[in-house]
Amino acid sequence: MEVDILNFLSKSAQNMKPSPIRALLSVVNQPGIISFAGGFPNPSTFPIEDLKQIVIDVLEQEGAKSLQYGGTDGNAQLREEIAKIYIAQGLDIDKDNVIITTASQQAIDLTSRIFLDPGDTVVCGIPTYLGALQSFNAYRANIVGAEKDEELEAVVRAMCASGKKPKFIYAIPDFQNPTGITMSLEQRKYMVKIARKYDLLIVEDSPYREIRFTGEPQPMLSSLAPERTIMLGTFSKTFVPGFRLGWVIAPKHIIQRYNLAKQSSDLCTSNFTQCIAARYLQSGLFEKNIQSTIELYKHKKDIMLESMEKYMPEGVSWTNPEGGLFLLITLPEGYDAKILFDYAIKESVAFVIGEAFFYDGTGQNTLRVNYSFMDDDKIVEGIKRLAKAIETMRANM
Amino acid sequence: MEVDILNFLSKSAQNMKPSPIRALLSVVNQPGIISFAGGFPNPSTFPIEDLKQIVIDVLEQEGAKSLQYGGTDGNAQLREEIAKIYIAQGLDIDKDNVIITTASQQAIDLTSRIFLDPGDTVVCGIPTYLGALQSFNAYRANIVGAEKDEELEAVVRAMCASGKKPKFIYAIPDFQNPTGITMSLEQRKYMVKIARKYDLLIVEDSPYREIRFTGEPQPMLSSLAPERTIMLGTFSKTFVPGFRLGWVIAPKHIIQRYNLAKQSSDLCTSNFTQCIAARYLQSGLFEKNIQSTIELYKHKKDIMLESMEKYMPEGVSWTNPEGGLFLLITLPEGYDAKILFDYAIKESVAFVIGEAFFYDGTGQNTLRVNYSFMDDDKIVEGIKRLAKAIETMRANM
Repeated sequence: MEVDILNFLSKSAQNMKPSPIRALLSVVNQPGIISFAGGFPNPSTFPIEDLKQIVIDVLEQEGAKSLQYGGTDGNAQLREEIAKIYIAQGLDIDKDNVIITTASQQAIDLTSRIFLDPGDTVVCGIPTYLGALQSFNAYRANIVGAEKDEELEAVVRAMCASGKKPKFIYAIPDFQNPTGITMSLEQRKYMVKIARKYDLLIVEDSPYREIRFTGEPQPMLSSLAPERTIMLGTFSKTFVPGFRLGWVIAPKHIIQRYNLAKQSSDLCTSNFTQCIAARYLQSGLFEKNIQSTIELYKHKKDIMLESMEKYMPEGVSWTNPEGGLFLLITLPEGYDAKILFDYAIKESVAFVIGEAFFYDGTGQNTLRVNYSFMDDDKIVEGIKRLAKAIETMRANM
Repeated sequence: MEVDILNFLSKSAQNMKPSPIRALLSVVNQPGIISFAGGFPNPSTFPIEDLKQIVIDVLEQEGAKSLQYGGTDGNAQLREEIAKIYIAQGLDIDKDNVIITTASQQAIDLTSRIFLDPGDTVVCGIPTYLGALQSFNAYRANIVGAEKDEELEAVVRAMCASGKKPKFIYAIPDFQNPTGITMSLEQRKYMVKIARKYDLLIVEDSPYREIRFTGEPQPMLSSLAPERTIMLGTFSKTFVPGFRLGWVIAPKHIIQRYNLAKQSSDLCTSNFTQCIAARYLQSGLFEKNIQSTIELYKHKKDIMLESMEKYMPEGVSWTNPEGGLFLLITLPEGYDAKILFDYAIKESVAFVIGEAFFYDGTGQNTLRVNYSFMDDDKIVEGIKRLAKAIETMRANM
């Protein structure tokens, strides 16, 4: 006889929703499906041959250490290497401003845990990363959004006036997920100005920043407002997701809070994968690998854009990202991407329904499309199929 | 200028306390200190040579898969192997009753997240594992304890009568941390009877069960009450802690809740370390390694007990565990282990102050001692030093 689990669940567990991306994995993994759904890096960017040597070196030279428990803050060499990456981008930090996390989803989760009581307000973009929305929802936060950047102050002022002053602004300034759009320098300065004026923290989620195809990098929010910005980074898009390595960079008194929260959360991140990553970064291979990753993804993005220009029906538009892994397709007003999804699966092509990224239930006519994972010819074929699915849907509307 | 972090912290973050074990790591890592403080497995049990071959096999045969994102539930081969371990112990399960976690601290954390709202009641032993207490505290649970097993019903009844019916009983039936004591069959049946009578869940934390020196294994709580028991396991004591691999075994409708909670928590555990572990288990090396680990730890436990019999002042007592990594020393009534700790550090020996394991602030005269990590001669020397510290303290009382 089963226990009735509903008698036992916490309010948070009652509030948890499955990730629409994870939920559709079983569909999109069917043979023959061309999937633009996941956020998977291309496996050809995984430095398998280099890793073989490094892993053996780790086991031979620091086997006992790498297989033992590690500190909650993470491997010191790795934190040192990560600090260097950001020092080169203008951050005034050292390794003790860095804590290693079990990839960036844990960094988001710890952020929610440290700052959010039920009902606390978070400001984010519309749309924004659904893994972050999932976390804020699990902590029963009050999510408010600004569709346009210039609305930010109005939103913050309104919340403050109603006694619900936001705890932080959550932003993905570089090649946003799902839009692929990058914040301009003016937008960054404006966000920092508002955060300072109203004394808010900024959470700068930055998983893609290193993968820039064109244009000049803009300063990080962390460099514009180091006193109040908490930066979340990861190797999942620039190295390998399978090691589950991410980090938080923040003022040291804030990092101490992450350390405490991580202790009860998972004690420490894999020392073994940290030792491997530290050596990989020390070897200089990381930088080279990112360069070839950038070339590969730029090429794939170009192929996708060319295919869309060629095949997409009139009225369909899309973003043209300067970097990252995703772009957002917008269907004509009144079209529903949920309905399109069924047509698309019939054509053996998949995407993520954009609505999941809109906390306010809008975005019905959008779809997030990933270009990093599929082979070049499948990108062309997949866009053809997607265009056909849109046309079939239109014919049936 | 710093932001005032206290303006931003959640109630949970305000409630988080550093682990006394993690906090004293800097003291006990000083050169020359003999530390019985941590819960570290002995590095000589790490199968470094075997792992070299396995890691190369993983990279050569499933490199792209092992370095990619994995499913939230975990690697299917690994779950299959873990299920086999427990099927052999009488559990009626398959791989879909198993979810992989980022070691057992995450299993505890997810348990708290899924079941505990602030003020919800958890019943545990006095003393009990402090990492669990840390997690229950972070979720602001109401912790109540039963010092003697036969008090369990009285405690549960009292809580139910006051409208605070417990969500679950947290128990470590085999070689408990910190006492090293194992529950008898009668005690297990009694706990299950109470859980059924009052409709409570049981959380069976089982990190040491495989490391039994003497006596017959008792049935797992999971086999006595499969409908309501959530079992937490880990490779941290039987294989390597550095891979951060643990698991939860429970009815499938409960495992689904863990899957949801894990999605927003860290998405998935390292696919790479899971692939390695799956192959290690498939190879049969795991069983052999546990056998030699048991011999090693039994030997070390015996040395520690002999040394205590030889050197400990009168009035000091200790447990004699049938397995696991720890024993509990009890000083004469009125002695304070916190004061002893300073004397011990002067003698260059360290332990964990037992009080940290007593949620109710008792246990002042107890200390937890680990025997798995130190070399044999250091165990003898460390106990000598500890005895001397006790005598010096007594002379100054």
